[in-house]
Amino acid sequence: MSKKTTTALIGLGSMGNGMARSILKAGHVTHGFDIAPAAVDNFRADGGADGTLPDVASDLDSVAIVVLNAVQTENVLFGDQGIVSMLKSGAVVIACATVPPEFAKRMAARCAETGVLYLDAPISGGSAKAAQGKLSIMASGSPEAFAAARPVLDATAETVFDLGETVGAGSAMKAVNQLLAGVHIAAMAEAMTFGMTQGVAPEKFVEVISKCAGTSWMLENRAPHIVAGDYTPHSTVDIWLKDLGIVLEIAKQAKFGAPITAAALQQFLAASGSGLGREDDAAIAKVYARNAGIKLPGEI
Amino acid sequence: MSKKTTTALIGLGSMGNGMARSILKAGHVTHGFDIAPAAVDNFRADGGADGTLPDVASDLDSVAIVVLNAVQTENVLFGDQGIVSMLKSGAVVIACATVPPEFAKRMAARCAETGVLYLDAPISGGSAKAAQGKLSIMASGSPEAFAAARPVLDATAETVFDLGETVGAGSAMKAVNQLLAGVHIAAMAEAMTFGMTQGVAPEKFVEVISKCAGTSWMLENRAPHIVAGDYTPHSTVDIWLKDLGIVLEIAKQAKFGAPITAAALQQFLAASGSGLGREDDAAIAKVYARNAGIKLPGEI
Repeated sequence: MSKKTTTALIGLGSMGNGMARSILKAGHVTHGFDIAPAAVDNFRADGGADGTLPDVASDLDSVAIVVLNAVQTENVLFGDQGIVSMLKSGAVVIACATVPPEFAKRMAARCAETGVLYLDAPISGGSAKAAQGKLSIMASGSPEAFAAARPVLDATAETVFDLGETVGAGSAMKAVNQLLAGVHIAAMAEAMTFGMTQGVAPEKFVEVISKCAGTSWMLENRAPHIVAGDYTPHSTVDIWLKDLGIVLEIAKQAKFGAPITAAALQQFLAASGSGLGREDDAAIAKVYARNAGIKLPGEI
Repeated sequence: MSKKTTTALIGLGSMGNGMARSILKAGHVTHGFDIAPAAVDNFRADGGADGTLPDVASDLDSVAIVVLNAVQTENVLFGDQGIVSMLKSGAVVIACATVPPEFAKRMAARCAETGVLYLDAPISGGSAKAAQGKLSIMASGSPEAFAAARPVLDATAETVFDLGETVGAGSAMKAVNQLLAGVHIAAMAEAMTFGMTQGVAPEKFVEVISKCAGTSWMLENRAPHIVAGDYTPHSTVDIWLKDLGIVLEIAKQAKFGAPITAAALQQFLAASGSGLGREDDAAIAKVYARNAGIKLPGEI
């Protein structure tokens, strides 16, 4: 069991909320912050600690930043009410958003100026795993940063991949994972709807392909959403505009051509452009179905 | 245990050879034929039955056709020395090549003219599973065709997906599976080499991603080939020119746009065009590595 620490989690969205509750459950003094006051109130009602961020910042051993992207992360750390200047020396920032590796390096360097540690720690696993404290975390940073972050890692993760001391390695691995995850969702949708044009029923697709060489983690997780006609967003279409955008941005900087990723992003763009951005990412299948003149399960 | 029958397997390549030996092992009278005399001799030396195809054809309860494609399948069935005219009424053709569903329908109709049954039965699993009698078979056809094929199915398959009575359903499901399998190999290569440009070592890629949401069956099976620098062909680059070509051909007939499949095929074409066609399909990674100016494991 980790020693009891004082921590804050900033960004009580679908991932952050589950993580904050997992940290709380592990017995740590846990502050939760969000731009939505209701999210903060809900968390406090369930045991979250009181106090404004400026009031409690100097007490914090760690701060997990679970926001959408690099811009929001930088704003939390170094914006108008940036937290880094308020943290004590030796506190650790645990940065969980999917960001370019170079961005993570810059943030770590700026934190170091005031003695604040930085763990590059993108998360994977979805909101259900976040609530269970069973995420995968792809982490890189100094041994001191790992040590300071350990109580939060222990409370939130089933698996922590230690990717070494170079900040950015965690974010690089996360980008690789997102490339594959996004492509696999789009490929699943392409294959399922292609099958429908050949008389393969969606439920038969799931039954057979999930046991064959064509399967993927994403296929097994997302294809049932299409079979059920349920596009309640677990992860949205628009998340992939962001994440595959990051992949192609850093790929371009490395002069790396990624034609399959680019093709997948175009399909997510078509989904978002046609009004499906806030639906579950499996809704990318609707683009294929519309283009092929076929009806998905649940469509009239 | 199935009753003992007399069967022939035509096409003693990496898949057919393993299947023929699995049928033999199950105790059936098994003839093996191939355009390569050495393959036939080897099989007979290990217990395969003697006799030319014209001599034994009228004794056969079933014939499995394990050739490369539709053209070869049609030639075996209805070419100059086509077998169908020599088979007894009630014998079953078990057609295992990856072919367009419409082709399977045409072959079945022609077989029916002389009372020969037809099982549309594409196979999946690779040569190792073929040798163990543990293939997956995606089968469709009449109950009579299934019944006549049962001894061969039992001897060669771990899983037989019964896709109903409509010949072509098996081939449709196989096309769906091949779409995904081919895309997943190409995506794996794209992701691994992209990761290398960001400092992610190939062996770390396999270790981490295989436990994350970005994994696929093909990633776990093929990525280790790249890590080992071993491109001994289990399944070749050129197989995908054929299989993804079939997918895009029947997709076009259905006016179905498949942009991710098309992007993957372009990468396999570049691999084949640059001399890698007979290497293991994981050699598609060499296209990415060359374009990005990086060296894969084992390259000097």
